[in-house]
Order: sequence, then structure tokens, then C-alpha cells
Amino acid sequence: MRLNHRLILALDVTDPKRAVELAGRVRPHVDGVKVGWPLVLAGGLDVLRTLSKTDYVLCDFKIADIPNTNRLIVEQAVDAGASGIICHGFVGEDSVRACVDAARGADVFVLVEMSHPGGLEYSAKYAEDLARVAARVNAAGIIAPATRPERVRALRAIIGRKQILAPGVGAQGGKASEAIAAGADAVIVGRAIYEAVNPAEAAKAIVGEIRSIVSR
Amino acid sequence: MRLNHRLILALDVTDPKRAVELAGRVRPHVDGVKVGWPLVLAGGLDVLRTLSKTDYVLCDFKIADIPNTNRLIVEQAVDAGASGIICHGFVGEDSVRACVDAARGADVFVLVEMSHPGGLEYSAKYAEDLARVAARVNAAGIIAPATRPERVRALRAIIGRKQILAPGVGAQGGKASEAIAAGADAVIVGRAIYEAVNPAEAAKAIVGEIRSIVSR
Repeated sequence: MRLNHRLILALDVTDPKRAVELAGRVRPHVDGVKVGWPLVLAGGLDVLRTLSKTDYVLCDFKIADIPNTNRLIVEQAVDAGASGIICHGFVGEDSVRACVDAARGADVFVLVEMSHPGGLEYSAKYAEDLARVAARVNAAGIIAPATRPERVRALRAIIGRKQILAPGVGAQGGKASEAIAAGADAVIVGRAIYEAVNPAEAAKAIVGEIRSIVSR
Repeated sequence: MRLNHRLILALDVTDPKRAVELAGRVRPHVDGVKVGWPLVLAGGLDVLRTLSKTDYVLCDFKIADIPNTNRLIVEQAVDAGASGIICHGFVGEDSVRACVDAARGADVFVLVEMSHPGGLEYSAKYAEDLARVAARVNAAGIIAPATRPERVRALRAIIGRKQILAPGVGAQGGKASEAIAAGADAVIVGRAIYEAVNPAEAAKAIVGEIRSIVSR
């Protein structure tokens, strides 16, 4: 994924019209938009088709099925215009590899550690192993929590130059500059942008905060 | 879930028209149909709306997100007619509980162990713990692999009278009667039915095999 602003907008809304409108307002300040199942259930693949005309669309489907089903999901998402897709790592290397194979050049990001409390109960115990899986299958990178910069730092040491995208900035408590300083390539921000009175200004402020700590 | 035939048809096809047609042919011999993301991506929520008019629809979404996103997915599925939904257990108890709370009486089945090789690498190590999570949050039951009857037996000992649905019969190598004998309440079968020359007869034969070993 080409990163200029180091910021991705999480379109965690369920109204397709609002999603498209928000993407348009914030576009000058972000590198892409992240779209999840709630929005795609509401708007169908047409949401991906529309957004992908103007934006890098990262499908946050947290795919976690057997290899053949993963393949079928990725194929449809990429056909509809997705530039990237997020899959879970804990379902095993074969399932992750199936996503990479089906993506035909689109980026696959492997979710290795989640930001909510329940994410620490089981799956996060394997985060380092899953980062190694991402490297082995030649994924574009991993997803790791901005709420835990020390974990971003530890995972950076494992995956070398692959990309780290870090959600959890803003409403969940993470700070963009801290996640970037810890080694994230970009942060993913939702509510702190789209619930702001002026979403474009909110995005611009986050980009400014990031630029204040990195030489470009 | 009300089980009479102890058989659920996995509609693992991506053509909505074919899915609806198959469901109609097999209906007299199954207790419901299982629908996954590939079909819903292709047909949208309308597939759920159509099938749920005549069938118990189990949404095999393998939901594996943070609690709030899980909630949004379950709400939309149930609103569109889903009678049951499958979520992953490994994302933690809070995420599973969010599904149960959002289901408003619809059945939530917790996937605790998968049937493909990669499923054994990480997630299956916690299958017993995840079955306990399912019991604690008062889920309808769990999903466990028909390909490993000894695992179904071990999980049955943990979850008491909650339901166990077992996929993996037929193409993946599991045998319906063995899964039922090990403690599964129903088996989930896809290709062995819908790729048969006569899907209804194939389903009927599986029901006959199950009835041969259980007193009803």
C-alpha cells in the first residue's frame, strides 16, 4: 500500500451514502479507507465498486475461514475493486496463504493482535508467530494495535520492512504519533475523524501530529 | 435450533438462484441451510430474506471482530431473517457475548475447532476453553469437526446439553453416523449433497444413515 499521509480512514458506518460522502470530504488527507462487514452488508458490493473508483479500499473482513472459502471471499472483494484485504492469522498458514494467492496482487494484511480486552484471552498469545506467518506467505503486512505501542515495536522487529497498520487511535485511546514512533507505517482512525464537526480538519490534524515526529 | 433430521445443508455456492433452488429440492430432508459470506457477497441480504421465508437460515459468517462490530453484523443478519449465526470463539468472551446479546433470541453457535490443517496450528489448542465460553455466555451451542469424532466426544463432555453442529461430512472425509454417535446433534453437509446427481436423494440417504444408529 502506498502511504503518503500515513493515515487510513475507518469507515465504520452502516449508511453507504454517508460512507461515500465522508470518504470524499476526508480524501485529501488520507491514503485510503477501511470498509467492514456492517457497511458491506448494508450496501452490498456496490459500496466497494463506488469507493474504489476514487480511493484505496481496504476490506476489513477479518476473514477467518478454511482456505477455499477465504479464496472465494477475496476473489469477490478484489473483483469489486478492493485494493487490500484484512484476514485473521490464527486460522493457520494455509488459510492466510489462500488469501494471498487469491488476491492477485492486491494487498493482504494479516491481523495478528486485536485491541479489545477479549483479544488478549487467546489470539494475542500467538501474535509473534502470526507475524512470522505473514512474512512467510509474503503478505503486504500486518495489523497491530495502536493502543499498545510496545507490541507494535516487538512485531516490527519480526516483520522487517513489511507494513504495519495500526487501528485504535482516538476513541480507543491510542495516539497516532506514538504508534508511528513505535514502528507503525500508518494508523487507522475512525470515530475521531468521522464524528468530528469537521472530519477533514480532524484528519489533517492527525496527519500534522504524525509529521511532527517523522522526517519525510 | 429445532432438529428433526439432524442434517443441515451447507449452501456453499455463490449463485443465489442456484442456492434457492437447491434449498427447495432438499428442504424435506434437512433442518435448515447454512449460508456463508461468498453467497451473501454475491446476493446481498436479499439471499437471507428469500431463504428465511421457507428455511431455518444459519449464517456461517465466522464473525471474529471486536464486540461492537460483531453486534452490527449480527443485528443486520437477524433483521434480514437469519435464525442462527456462527461466530468464532478465539476473539474472546466479550466478542462472543456481544453476538449473543445482539441476536435477540436467534441462535448463536460458537466455532471452537475447525476442520482444515491450519485450524490445528493455533485456534484448536483452545477448543475446550472456547466451549466453556459458549456455555458461559449461553450460546445455543458449538461447531466442532465431524472429521474428528473423538474431539466431538471431548467437547460434548464440556458443554452438557447445548447443541453441537458438526461440519466436514462427505467431501472432507467425516461420516455422519460417526459424528452423531460421538455426540453431535446434527451434521452439516455441502458438496456430498449439492454435487450429487439427485441432491434430495443424497440428503435422504444421510438422514437414513443417521437414523440407523439413533433411537428417536
